[in-house]
Amino acid sequence: MACRDLPDTGLPAEFGFIARIFRPLAGHGALDLRDDAAVFTPPPGRQIVIAADAMVESVHFLPDDPAETVGRKLLRCNLSDLAGMDATPLGYLLTVSMPPARDEAWFAGFATGLARDQQEFGITLLGGDTTSTTGPLVLSLTVLGHVAPGMALRRNTARVGDGLWVTGTIGDGAMGLLARRGEIADRDGYLAGRYQLPRPRLGLALGAVASAGMDVSDGLVQDLGHMARESGVGAVIHAAQVPLSPAVRALGPQWLPTCLGGGDDYELLLAVPPGHEALLRDHAARQGVSVTRIGQVVARAGVRVLDASGAEMVLARRGWSHAM
Amino acid sequence: MACRDLPDTGLPAEFGFIARIFRPLAGHGALDLRDDAAVFTPPPGRQIVIAADAMVESVHFLPDDPAETVGRKLLRCNLSDLAGMDATPLGYLLTVSMPPARDEAWFAGFATGLARDQQEFGITLLGGDTTSTTGPLVLSLTVLGHVAPGMALRRNTARVGDGLWVTGTIGDGAMGLLARRGEIADRDGYLAGRYQLPRPRLGLALGAVASAGMDVSDGLVQDLGHMARESGVGAVIHAAQVPLSPAVRALGPQWLPTCLGGGDDYELLLAVPPGHEALLRDHAARQGVSVTRIGQVVARAGVRVLDASGAEMVLARRGWSHAM
Repeated sequence: MACRDLPDTGLPAEFGFIARIFRPLAGHGALDLRDDAAVFTPPPGRQIVIAADAMVESVHFLPDDPAETVGRKLLRCNLSDLAGMDATPLGYLLTVSMPPARDEAWFAGFATGLARDQQEFGITLLGGDTTSTTGPLVLSLTVLGHVAPGMALRRNTARVGDGLWVTGTIGDGAMGLLARRGEIADRDGYLAGRYQLPRPRLGLALGAVASAGMDVSDGLVQDLGHMARESGVGAVIHAAQVPLSPAVRALGPQWLPTCLGGGDDYELLLAVPPGHEALLRDHAARQGVSVTRIGQVVARAGVRVLDASGAEMVLARRGWSHAM
Repeated sequence: MACRDLPDTGLPAEFGFIARIFRPLAGHGALDLRDDAAVFTPPPGRQIVIAADAMVESVHFLPDDPAETVGRKLLRCNLSDLAGMDATPLGYLLTVSMPPARDEAWFAGFATGLARDQQEFGITLLGGDTTSTTGPLVLSLTVLGHVAPGMALRRNTARVGDGLWVTGTIGDGAMGLLARRGEIADRDGYLAGRYQLPRPRLGLALGAVASAGMDVSDGLVQDLGHMARESGVGAVIHAAQVPLSPAVRALGPQWLPTCLGGGDDYELLLAVPPGHEALLRDHAARQGVSVTRIGQVVARAGVRVLDASGAEMVLARRGWSHAM
């Protein structure tokens, strides 16, 4: 709110734009977006969890993606980061760098999507900034949540002997992107929907159930590699056990590598001690979320993916190479 | 950390880039930037203050501004938002959307600047995201601070009879931008320095001293207009009392309107009851910051700027029109 454009590139009447588009999304601590910062009282006895992600048009979403789902996907990617640490969402801040040609109607749709998800996830907008840019639309979102002290799930605490589990199904997001590009059939739009609208796996209360956890966003095999390396262990997964949706299965087994390395899943990857498996199933069932055991944590470093015959699969692409 | 690029636009070896450039900036709660979110324990009995600002190359900074000052300016703009609410900084998150041509050396300088300011202001990097973009470099920063409950300075609580005060000098940032563009002389670089490196007025402990406060970033007269309107009052300022630096005074009185409407000051504007003036001077003196009374809060709506003869000045430009 404090930094300004250089002369001659400022957006006209931006205060009115903010009032019309973003003020309806603002919650209590946002002070109606009238001050330069938001103020809130942290839930007593809790730690704060905070994450930030940016999305760039034509890089992270397609120019013809509906404005409503663009806002929701950005929010949900961030909520998935909270889910990966077993945190409960509190609110978010948003910065928007907009090209001059982008009209207000687009942002009205964008805000409509955010409003829907605010209601679904029980959060509000706390603040942010709008600026102009000569390049593509850039959206950056910071999400805040809270967690019981010391109970945040970490990715560096997997232990040899833990089972490896995932929520939901893997590969729908990667296949949904191919569907959006017309490279595969997607008659009922299920896959495109999974790509455009991830489902952050919040509320599973796994802090005392799993040894380690993270959300799968850059490709299952690559993300598992991070968990294994940072935990000082290795991992074996059985490709035939990786849960695929009926829509992906119908496309044929040749797509399995794409699913294992594709990214955009926003499911949780969990390392769970054998004694906690019943607890895991119970917590997941209460939220209506499926959980599937796909392998185990082993001492030997690296991630090995085994096919149905027990032979190691060689994957050309294990995931996406950038994150912070 | 969770959202990824579409195929063929990903940055190579981004994990290494993060490790080299940003991990050295990470503090305790950042979990070494290895997880998707940061976790921290809020200071007991305090409220959290949070603000976000974005800067776009060629919009908010010049392509030939040194990388080191670009990072510091972004951080300081956000810290100035905290100062405007009398909050104490805790840490920050950063998202970077970078064009392919930007080399790592630029970011090394950028990080060097951030490291210097982290030390100066006692904060660390908590997390963030890096992505690619086809447009100009976009930097978005979210800053976190804390404040005693109910003591955050607000801009909507100025009262008739309060004096209006500013810290430091007004107009150096606006004149510094003109100097950077070669439109005015700036032999020793003082003005350019003030434009490139604002000084957030943290630590003044004004929550119980001022009735209202905010940082001046979009132009003194415009920002005062916000304070007055949102407080349901008006304001009168005396142009001759507005503190100008020797460098600005040397350029001549014709630049006064530029200073009053120019923006990029990052000084504090305060409404202070007459009984608290000694306290204000005392708090400011302890931080080595000058404070100057420039006018008063009145009942009549609007902001009037009076010249030395008491006649109302008409300003063509009162400030910048966008903020959130």
